[in-house]
Amino acid sequence: MSEPQNDPRLTPLAASLPFAVPFVGPETQVRTRGRPFAARLGANECGFGPSPRVIEALRAAAPEAWMYGDAESWELRQALAARHGVPIESVIVGEGIDGLLGYLVRLLVAPGEAVVTSAGAYPTFAYHVAGYGGALHTVPYRGDFEDPEALVATAEQTGARLVYLANPDNPMGSWHGAERIAAALDALPGHALMVLDEAYADFAPAEAIPPFYAGDRRVIRMRTFSKAHGLAGMRVGYAIGHPDLIAAFHKVRNHFGMCRLSQTAALASLSDPDHLAATVAKVDAAKTELGRIAGAHGLNALPSATNFVAIDCGAGGDFARAVLRELVARDVFVRMPGVAPLDRCIRVSAGPEGDLAAFARALPEALAAAREGADARA
Amino acid sequence: MSEPQNDPRLTPLAASLPFAVPFVGPETQVRTRGRPFAARLGANECGFGPSPRVIEALRAAAPEAWMYGDAESWELRQALAARHGVPIESVIVGEGIDGLLGYLVRLLVAPGEAVVTSAGAYPTFAYHVAGYGGALHTVPYRGDFEDPEALVATAEQTGARLVYLANPDNPMGSWHGAERIAAALDALPGHALMVLDEAYADFAPAEAIPPFYAGDRRVIRMRTFSKAHGLAGMRVGYAIGHPDLIAAFHKVRNHFGMCRLSQTAALASLSDPDHLAATVAKVDAAKTELGRIAGAHGLNALPSATNFVAIDCGAGGDFARAVLRELVARDVFVRMPGVAPLDRCIRVSAGPEGDLAAFARALPEALAAAREGADARA
Repeated sequence: MSEPQNDPRLTPLAASLPFAVPFVGPETQVRTRGRPFAARLGANECGFGPSPRVIEALRAAAPEAWMYGDAESWELRQALAARHGVPIESVIVGEGIDGLLGYLVRLLVAPGEAVVTSAGAYPTFAYHVAGYGGALHTVPYRGDFEDPEALVATAEQTGARLVYLANPDNPMGSWHGAERIAAALDALPGHALMVLDEAYADFAPAEAIPPFYAGDRRVIRMRTFSKAHGLAGMRVGYAIGHPDLIAAFHKVRNHFGMCRLSQTAALASLSDPDHLAATVAKVDAAKTELGRIAGAHGLNALPSATNFVAIDCGAGGDFARAVLRELVARDVFVRMPGVAPLDRCIRVSAGPEGDLAAFARALPEALAAAREGADARA
Repeated sequence: MSEPQNDPRLTPLAASLPFAVPFVGPETQVRTRGRPFAARLGANECGFGPSPRVIEALRAAAPEAWMYGDAESWELRQALAARHGVPIESVIVGEGIDGLLGYLVRLLVAPGEAVVTSAGAYPTFAYHVAGYGGALHTVPYRGDFEDPEALVATAEQTGARLVYLANPDNPMGSWHGAERIAAALDALPGHALMVLDEAYADFAPAEAIPPFYAGDRRVIRMRTFSKAHGLAGMRVGYAIGHPDLIAAFHKVRNHFGMCRLSQTAALASLSDPDHLAATVAKVDAAKTELGRIAGAHGLNALPSATNFVAIDCGAGGDFARAVLRELVARDVFVRMPGVAPLDRCIRVSAGPEGDLAAFARALPEALAAAREGADARA
């Protein structure tokens, strides 16, 4: 097929957008490579799987797939509201955090308006800002940490509508304490909303997570069933914010967009906190093992409050990209940050034993091949 | 809770949108009523259920719910492309037709630009047009039929970007022959795209459905697994159009928005054409039975090329609304057209025997109660 051309009827904004995607999925890579992966450690999925209660609930609900899901996701929102101690009007459920980020940008960012994020932070957020014509301003990481004070200062300077902050952070795995987040919110100008992406909150120390206060108009907090709950394939994200802000989502969202079985799966997962705790413990053990594997080859695994580890390959972005390429060539799916100096790292999900063993086997070969390539170019 | 107020940071467009939804789901009604429905015949779901192969495939795939779905829905798009004889680049899969309609409006309709639909046609399309600030122009039905020539003429007059036409039609169940659609496309001005909603194509006579021609830039055709495939709860819609137009969806869509289990379910359903044929036969029998029930009470069931029947209650919109209200009060979930003169009808899905029996029991009581109410007001 020839390269696509813009249909002449596209809006000027749509025509201006690139033919590019924020992430290439592993299935696409498998088709390109013509070979399956031996380890699936690139998308921070939970290879330990969902709760057995979820599997049972999904199997029981399969014959009900003919019915649209509840357009209000009422039972699920009620369970989430109870869990977080907020009213149900503060909770919106959507097709993953990705879907909710898209709605949020659409609601708050008119074309040309400013948005602030960190250089190297979540590409899909930047994708949505571009998609709605927002003007994205980026702030560098401070070391391996997002810089809340600089984000807020830039929001002030640019008159931003939205400030994106992930805590714990992706792709570095670092985190800030709740009081640091609270201070950033106190300093946030009134024209801006902070979107606090807490996709990895289940793995974080308690002191990283501020208490929920549904009356807070300054922040919307995003959570997901894709990580600790092991339900990435069911697309269930949620956000908690002031009821007035949450009500705006209902003005634009795909009202019957949630799969009925996804609602069932999320509810079943909430009913099994023991499985969640066991998953977090497995992830902790896997992160320790990833640190050991990295250290055995002279690499430094960064501290992580998530379900992945950023491993500093020790020789800059080009070298890390070569390591990643060689890992993929050895059937290990991993990803890496896209921006210097974060891109000296590869990002490896804390997966099950077999996947980590495949990574452990491939890593020394990948490092050697990357070093050979670097020597050959020198 | 108090009524929601607009967050002051909303864009002017978002602030201008009403706090209203296109459809109130049956689950919401059940919560309001405090009582379950005895018959679920309001959303044109397929009460005959999905294929046993789908149920089996869903049960087998449940443990895989931890993996994101393929962001390209490659296997499913490939199967659909083969089924319709078009290249895979002509096929986009999305979170139901509703989700795809939203993307389409976003891609083609800048604020203030004209869009044409029929007065009383699919409310969710109108919802998306409003949501992106489009200027919706409506054309009346001609009798119980959408009026392709008038739609095209209005597109010409208004400089419309999009013209919506459902064939077979919802909510009336009527249909046009393929040659009538082809003639409308021939007359369509170059600035407009026709969105041909074929959600009910599986129930339609062959002569209603034009052949697919992937090179046609004038039309995008929408299909769904929610109706004949019995998978409304899995949210799988697709569209077929020119590859350049389809490529534009990838610029804005939620790339990992499709549930992995939904992709699995749709593929399994495509592998069972016998089940699909059996479902269509059951729907045909149910429509005959609905006609019999209507006729037994002096009402006229309109001919239908869909999986529902519009039943003319014979005395205008207020009376039909009263009948609907009395049916709902008797635990029968049905819906009806929102615009005169279509609103002289109620719309009843062609469901399984038990649901039709509940409808048959409730209808004479509902008619009597509606007549009493009308007499009391007279």
